Amino acid sequence: MNPKELDMSQQQREQVDQMMRGAPLDIGGEPGELRRLFEQMMTSQPLSDDVQATPGELGDVPMLTITIDGAPADRTHLWFHGGWYVIGSSRTSAGLSADLARRGAARAVSIDYRLAPEHPYPAALQDAQAAYKALLGSGVDPATVAFVGESAGGGLATATMASLGDLGLPQPSCAVLFSPWTDLTLSGASMTEKVGIDPAFVPDKVQVRANDYVAGADPADPAISPLFADLRGLPPMLIQAGSNEILLDDSTRLAARAAAQDVAVILDVTPGVPHVFQSFAAVLEEGDLALDRVTEFLWARTGAAARP
Amino acid sequence: MNPKELDMSQQQREQVDQMMRGAPLDIGGEPGELRRLFEQMMTSQPLSDDVQATPGELGDVPMLTITIDGAPADRTHLWFHGGWYVIGSSRTSAGLSADLARRGAARAVSIDYRLAPEHPYPAALQDAQAAYKALLGSGVDPATVAFVGESAGGGLATATMASLGDLGLPQPSCAVLFSPWTDLTLSGASMTEKVGIDPAFVPDKVQVRANDYVAGADPADPAISPLFADLRGLPPMLIQAGSNEILLDDSTRLAARAAAQDVAVILDVTPGVPHVFQSFAAVLEEGDLALDRVTEFLWARTGAAARP
Repeated sequence: MNPKELDMSQQQREQVDQMMRGAPLDIGGEPGELRRLFEQMMTSQPLSDDVQATPGELGDVPMLTITIDGAPADRTHLWFHGGWYVIGSSRTSAGLSADLARRGAARAVSIDYRLAPEHPYPAALQDAQAAYKALLGSGVDPATVAFVGESAGGGLATATMASLGDLGLPQPSCAVLFSPWTDLTLSGASMTEKVGIDPAFVPDKVQVRANDYVAGADPADPAISPLFADLRGLPPMLIQAGSNEILLDDSTRLAARAAAQDVAVILDVTPGVPHVFQSFAAVLEEGDLALDRVTEFLWARTGAAARP
Repeated sequence: MNPKELDMSQQQREQVDQMMRGAPLDIGGEPGELRRLFEQMMTSQPLSDDVQATPGELGDVPMLTITIDGAPADRTHLWFHGGWYVIGSSRTSAGLSADLARRGAARAVSIDYRLAPEHPYPAALQDAQAAYKALLGSGVDPATVAFVGESAGGGLATATMASLGDLGLPQPSCAVLFSPWTDLTLSGASMTEKVGIDPAFVPDKVQVRANDYVAGADPADPAISPLFADLRGLPPMLIQAGSNEILLDDSTRLAARAAAQDVAVILDVTPGVPHVFQSFAAVLEEGDLALDRVTEFLWARTGAAARP
């Protein structure tokens, strides 16, 4: 970027930061109210005219299939939405799912795994496993599937991959993780160092949601906190995060562990931007550029030959 | 890669591993003999016919300018060769320098900083600073310059960037670090966990070379071990490493620190390959693909508009 572009980018980052600081979402609040507010915020903009979102089921798990008019659907992003295992849905992520589907000439299959506190661990993991198994059972080649997860969904995607060996299921071609929540013990240094810098989240509120999901189990259980999982055999992973998030170390430490355990891993950190900043790609240059890099990664792993 | 390509890649990785295990280089040995052997090994293949390598000087530092016939030279890779601060030269790196110059449509300016034990710290750092200052003094726009360093040269490139603020010099556009040596205290977990897996290097031999360079100073001095430096303000960095190296954590920890300090950083780890595996790009698919990603990174940071 040249200096003028940098100025604009700085302005965009400040706007996103202010918007997040001003959002009415108390992430530690009552789940029902929180879900309604989050749904309202994230679906206030209609999807683009070229997007088709079709509800369905996959292995008894509700899901939304998102396709782009005129785009082929022979490659699949199995999508794990964010929301701290308590809020969010395939609809709250549909904007980002559609954006990446369009860039990658793929369809997104976004699953509505069961949420805590009504359905704590292992409900979400079981739903993710069942959905992937059903996807493969429908004849989809795992080489054409990428797991994509945001925040809690990024942790869930990772925990699911780490469980596939025991289930006798093949790995997907690759995984894209946006600001994954991989450590429900909240032990990262960024969990203290980035307080106040993170415009949206503080540890004690995140702890409330961790408690909802963990529900008395061991938060360091690798199936809950895949940062502590055996990652050997996992497919290539692209992990993106912003430097303005208390979850930053959930990404940097996952990357370091994956590298040590012989996983092909790319960690890609953008400074000055918040948690899952790619959601703001339409108004934030850094988000747009980050999704360009995701697209390159996906093309290289799920069939560059098919590239239009 | 499809299964057949994976088999070939596996075979290539094993060949590179065997070649490195069989190399006659005792990295802890006598510097003069070591330099001769390394020079012989690394220059046994002539450079391609389209490569011009022209000796010169930059701020009184000897250097080699590497250009590719027919390629523009309006973008510069300021190159810091590897060799544990004791061996290596612009010539031992010329193959990789030329490869990346060709891919990136740039010229490489590869400096022969002074080597330990004859010239311990801070000789190399002073030479790097002087060369960059002279490069800018010759009218080169820093926005067209990328720092590229391998191994010790990656550490030196990082230490140099961390020193530019105090010198009143602008940062280059970006940096590419191949398996950088950033911690001369040798404190990374990989320094023990990857012993035997790393086909070429063991900690006690590396310690000999660290002692040569540190020469009684504090090895944790951030100007010697830039892992401990203040990295704020550094330009975007791409760090590549292999999972089969005792230096792996020099990369993963540098990336984590850079991220925490608001540097745009990409860490890119390839499994099953050794230290500076990009040197083997001609016979190793993973090296070739890694250099493709470096090229994408360089284009995005030093002027995509100029892309042919």
